[in-house]
Amino acid sequence: MKTIAVLTSGGDSPGMNAAIRAVVRVGIRSGLKVVGIERGYCGLIDGTFKEMTFASVAGITEKGGTILRTSRCGEFYTPEGRAKAAEQLKKAKIDGLVVIGGEGSLTGAKILHEEYGIPIVGIPGTIDNDIAETDMCVGVDTCLNTVVDAIQKLKDTATSHERAFIVEVMGRESGYIALMAAIATGAEAAVIPEIPIDYDKLAARLLEERKRGKINCIIVVAEGAGGAINVAKNLQDKIGYETRISILGHIQRGGSPSAFDRLLATRMGAEAVKALLDGEKCVMIGLKMGKMVRVSLEKVIGRKKELDLSLYDLALILS
Amino acid sequence: MKTIAVLTSGGDSPGMNAAIRAVVRVGIRSGLKVVGIERGYCGLIDGTFKEMTFASVAGITEKGGTILRTSRCGEFYTPEGRAKAAEQLKKAKIDGLVVIGGEGSLTGAKILHEEYGIPIVGIPGTIDNDIAETDMCVGVDTCLNTVVDAIQKLKDTATSHERAFIVEVMGRESGYIALMAAIATGAEAAVIPEIPIDYDKLAARLLEERKRGKINCIIVVAEGAGGAINVAKNLQDKIGYETRISILGHIQRGGSPSAFDRLLATRMGAEAVKALLDGEKCVMIGLKMGKMVRVSLEKVIGRKKELDLSLYDLALILS
Amino acid sequence: MKTIAVLTSGGDSPGMNAAIRAVVRVGIRSGLKVVGIERGYCGLIDGTFKEMTFASVAGITEKGGTILRTSRCGEFYTPEGRAKAAEQLKKAKIDGLVVIGGEGSLTGAKILHEEYGIPIVGIPGTIDNDIAETDMCVGVDTCLNTVVDAIQKLKDTATSHERAFIVEVMGRESGYIALMAAIATGAEAAVIPEIPIDYDKLAARLLEERKRGKINCIIVVAEGAGGAINVAKNLQDKIGYETRISILGHIQRGGSPSAFDRLLATRMGAEAVKALLDGEKCVMIGLKMGKMVRVSLEKVIGRKKELDLSLYDLALILS
Amino acid sequence: MKTIAVLTSGGDSPGMNAAIRAVVRVGIRSGLKVVGIERGYCGLIDGTFKEMTFASVAGITEKGGTILRTSRCGEFYTPEGRAKAAEQLKKAKIDGLVVIGGEGSLTGAKILHEEYGIPIVGIPGTIDNDIAETDMCVGVDTCLNTVVDAIQKLKDTATSHERAFIVEVMGRESGYIALMAAIATGAEAAVIPEIPIDYDKLAARLLEERKRGKINCIIVVAEGAGGAINVAKNLQDKIGYETRISILGHIQRGGSPSAFDRLLATRMGAEAVKALLDGEKCVMIGLKMGKMVRVSLEKVIGRKKELDLSLYDLALILS
Repeated sequence: MKTIAVLTSGGDSPGMNAAIRAVVRVGIRSGLKVVGIERGYCGLIDGTFKEMTFASVAGITEKGGTILRTSRCGEFYTPEGRAKAAEQLKKAKIDGLVVIGGEGSLTGAKILHEEYGIPIVGIPGTIDNDIAETDMCVGVDTCLNTVVDAIQKLKDTATSHERAFIVEVMGRESGYIALMAAIATGAEAAVIPEIPIDYDKLAARLLEERKRGKINCIIVVAEGAGGAINVAKNLQDKIGYETRISILGHIQRGGSPSAFDRLLATRMGAEAVKALLDGEKCVMIGLKMGKMVRVSLEKVIGRKKELDLSLYDLALILS
Repeated sequence: MKTIAVLTSGGDSPGMNAAIRAVVRVGIRSGLKVVGIERGYCGLIDGTFKEMTFASVAGITEKGGTILRTSRCGEFYTPEGRAKAAEQLKKAKIDGLVVIGGEGSLTGAKILHEEYGIPIVGIPGTIDNDIAETDMCVGVDTCLNTVVDAIQKLKDTATSHERAFIVEVMGRESGYIALMAAIATGAEAAVIPEIPIDYDKLAARLLEERKRGKINCIIVVAEGAGGAINVAKNLQDKIGYETRISILGHIQRGGSPSAFDRLLATRMGAEAVKALLDGEKCVMIGLKMGKMVRVSLEKVIGRKKELDLSLYDLALILS
Repeated sequence: MKTIAVLTSGGDSPGMNAAIRAVVRVGIRSGLKVVGIERGYCGLIDGTFKEMTFASVAGITEKGGTILRTSRCGEFYTPEGRAKAAEQLKKAKIDGLVVIGGEGSLTGAKILHEEYGIPIVGIPGTIDNDIAETDMCVGVDTCLNTVVDAIQKLKDTATSHERAFIVEVMGRESGYIALMAAIATGAEAAVIPEIPIDYDKLAARLLEERKRGKINCIIVVAEGAGGAINVAKNLQDKIGYETRISILGHIQRGGSPSAFDRLLATRMGAEAVKALLDGEKCVMIGLKMGKMVRVSLEKVIGRKKELDLSLYDLALILS
Repeated sequence: MKTIAVLTSGGDSPGMNAAIRAVVRVGIRSGLKVVGIERGYCGLIDGTFKEMTFASVAGITEKGGTILRTSRCGEFYTPEGRAKAAEQLKKAKIDGLVVIGGEGSLTGAKILHEEYGIPIVGIPGTIDNDIAETDMCVGVDTCLNTVVDAIQKLKDTATSHERAFIVEVMGRESGYIALMAAIATGAEAAVIPEIPIDYDKLAARLLEERKRGKINCIIVVAEGAGGAINVAKNLQDKIGYETRISILGHIQRGGSPSAFDRLLATRMGAEAVKALLDGEKCVMIGLKMGKMVRVSLEKVIGRKKELDLSLYDLALILS
């Protein structure tokens, strides 16, 4: 193994830069040439490659987003696209590829490996925390801090106006962010895709809490659970008091990464290079029991990380 | 003057608690009894009063929102509502009233004074910064920091995905927040109610900048200038590249106040008590040249603080 | 089991309030009476107890410190002190005790159990992350974010002045905070109690890096590794360029807890109550593989959590 | 005027980059060539100049420190040093110079103008806020927010342990930061160079407050008022309860600038270029009544901005 490449793909998540930096620096220190591929699989197909140096990743750990940029690349999901990608890798004499991204991106990497044999190591980077075989994905912790901070701000104004706020957070198929943010902020309820919501029961509980003297109310909704507007429509008439909607949107993706995400990403990036050097062919780096592990991508793709639903009950008990 | 009262009214803004604390503590130290009125003019009409002590305002400076709560009270804008309010003030032997809020709230205060003679001192508390005769209103600085922080996060993801973001911020009649945030974040454009926007010209400029190599694009829109969805619709076809919308919403009102807002609110609260003790009848406390001033409410109501439009040109020059 | 009590002891750490809240609310929802003991073991000896209600822990999750206050109580480490404590517990008919604190506090709890039979559940709360049998302690994550944020600020000024900064962080016997912060900020070196430092070698490396063009330099020192002043003395002459010292001190203990610490503390608090109800006599709640576990205090006390020293090498490789 | 240059000098302060960006971009848009001088007056003497472009200042507004770096340059304060500097300016055909820094740096600029006629415009950049003829200096607002945030963290732990904290903040000759931070955080006292402190009286007040039930205590000390260690020594015996010291140090200089500082610096940078184009010879840009003003450096140097001491009384009344 003489040359490896690294790319970021799909939605960006905070910490991706720390992972890139670790891949580059550990790669160089291990005697490898490291190539950065811009704009994810689109850049792989187009051959927008540049050699990375120690200096080209200086000071990037603290930056949100990804200096390599990213994209959702339709062409790569066609056989023709992947053929072009493989051609580019061959032309640039790249012996191994590190892919940082969510499940879609890792699936693409696996197919590329299966079709063209190129050794692949994936790093789970997504704020959804929905990837199997790792306790945490790069970006989740920062995202959660951003969401908690935003909800705390909404609580100020909710309390001052004695209102309910319906807050929509990211999570198309996973209620992880919504549920964890609800517990961390002491929200009155979480509405998540994993558990159907009984609006009559919820409204009854909220009304009772208001009678007991609670003057604010925060309900956290995962976008995949119908969205805030929908939840508000279903609740408004039943509870009677003022309701406001807040859709946090893309601010959840940005921001300087937390210490946790910097560390996680750095360790995963370093381990990814070691995995390639050790001859791994198609694995993802995961975090388990505080340690780096290598898991076959076979075991990751097509499965979903399950949400610990006992936490849903805990959220109810605590509010 | 033996007893004064304080209330917060209209939309909450960060720093209101520091103003309440200063009114209460300076009042007590001046030998006055200080009454807190809950939920703005609604509480004034209902007589939800409570005596404030040194301890009841301990540790509130750092909190967003208002511990006295607030409301937009329709009844107070009827003669009957104000009659009830005046009755409550009389019953509680209140000799002077401090009102913390925006222009609507100050207008209500002025009418109450005119009709019933009660001495009134207003403190401009609103994140819109649209009140005449003061350089800054309580809450504006914190709001601006929140907006700048959010836009910075969006910039991370905009850059990573090479997208344009249309960010909607508060400001129904004033483009203050939008314009200042645009300058502070180096945004490509601000769309504000004060200046009509030429979409063809804007699109041409954005396309030229992209040709020059700029890969992200932030456009800050005041809600009173049509809103982000509308701006996106008008731009999307003309620029061709991916556009995302972010409506920052109510997080702009909350959060622990900045040092500036804590200081401004504290000074205004202290000055409000002094103004009542000095026999002022119907004034607002303002900030001018770094100093506290007292301005007749007559001069404040019905006028609008003008936005310094030379800053609009500066924003264009810099981007 | 009818009545349980909760106390916080030793140095405070962010998240303790979330743990208290969970103990109180899960306790009450489980039909228990929950008593709060003020000022740690001092309050236990003095009998400064108060019954906790759902309302008495409202809105505390976001607060740093501990609403029950804390202390380092010499008297409790005498047999007489513990006899008084046991007497107070008996008088108040307390059937189980939750102790939130570091190793010293948990040791005290274990001895109390051994001497008087009172069921004890410990929650590891310390920013040092030096407690065995748990992946993380309550407060570590927040502390690390505070340290990273401070070092980032120092980096700005280090770069502008082309200086070296020697930054002292907490950790009397553990280099955890120092090492993690060094990796997360891309610092040039970490000086920790676990690994002896060779100043000649370090100086040589720093000089070489400066020759290569690096204009700033951050060295993170655990207080238990000699302290920043000492490190500066040893380096100053060897490197020749300007060195500044920054001792971060007690700001590392405070601040609103991170999402991670809120979640960890909440889950540990809930699990502590369940453990008492399940008849556990002398355990600590730990986090392993993302799950709550109960570990005999026997296995915790007297051992030290070991630092993963492979991360020390990683820090060197990356800088 | 065809070519102008810009440098930053003395201690760095947050916002300097926004000022540099404005000078560069407004300069270029005005048809000028703009030269960046590295490392303050040292770089001026050495001729470390580089031409600045639109792109070279992209994305720097949010960064702390100064991309041009800075220094305290002894040589410039000798006639020989200034002769070399003038020679370099002549060689590079620089027609005007923008100097961003504190009083020492502006004094140097004034002397250079007097000796060699080069047109000079100063921008007040210092966290001390001690420069006459401007309401605010670039960096003060960010510094104050950092200090307030740190003190808030210390308050958490002070309350939990029922301790007093003596917090040392920057300000060698001015108590501005200390006094403002004390008011903004509700500290018990500010110790500043402008007002002698009576320790017996202070201790008596603190003891009385403790009797009244106040369990924490924060005293903010300007470094120029003797420093925290000294204050602690004088108080410790008199008050009897536990005291801790925290010296905030260099973190006060760093960090991403606040919205206020970005705006102030941007406006000052733009105005500096206009002033040179208008033929000004030796002025400083100031902020007065929210507007940009030009003040002769004659009126600035040798005077000190006076602290509004009525705020000292206000701090006492409120605590």
